[in-house]
Amino acid sequence: METTTEFEGNTSDNSVFIGNKPFMNYITGVIMQFTAKNAEDVVIKARGKFISRAVDVAEVSAKRFLDNSVSVKDIKIDSEGFKNNEGRDVRVSTIEITLSKNR
Amino acid sequence: METTTEFEGNTSDNSVFIGNKPFMNYITGVIMQFTAKNAEDVVIKARGKFISRAVDVAEVSAKRFLDNSVSVKDIKIDSEGFKNNEGRDVRVSTIEITLSKNR
Repeated sequence: METTTEFEGNTSDNSVFIGNKPFMNYITGVIMQFTAKNAEDVVIKARGKFISRAVDVAEVSAKRFLDNSVSVKDIKIDSEGFKNNEGRDVRVSTIEITLSKNR
Repeated sequence: METTTEFEGNTSDNSVFIGNKPFMNYITGVIMQFTAKNAEDVVIKARGKFISRAVDVAEVSAKRFLDNSVSVKDIKIDSEGFKNNEGRDVRVSTIEITLSKNR
């Protein structure tokens, strides 16, 4: 599941999906949800090797760009099984990091 | 901070530090804490690019090897600033995943 999809980096439903676009795209995506769209929560989602990057996006957007006006409210990890191109069962880990406006 | 340290993969204080040793070393480390050392909690820790691997270790050890007898109790993310070899300020994200025996 390392293939990129059309909506990586785009936002819908207050979610930001992390892939291999430039890092600042994702930071901008998170900030836009909180500012232009006035979201209370933003969920940063990633799978596999992009999980490390999701944590970077959460940390940098909350601490450097939103100046601690948002905090990590919840973090969930999980894993999904699926068949790869060769028909083998493989497993990929997932993460969902919820950032929330401080009240 | 991609340099490996002597104690990567070793366990102390119920913690398992994730680095670039073979994946099963870390799984074994987690399982040993719960079984041989009878720990109630095990904390899986990682920095930077090893964060994705920490999530894999948590998922595989809890779901495949410990057969859901342990669960994710807590996940913390943070970031640390330090000076790299060239004296530049850099930042690295960290994660701590606490697995806990089900009661």
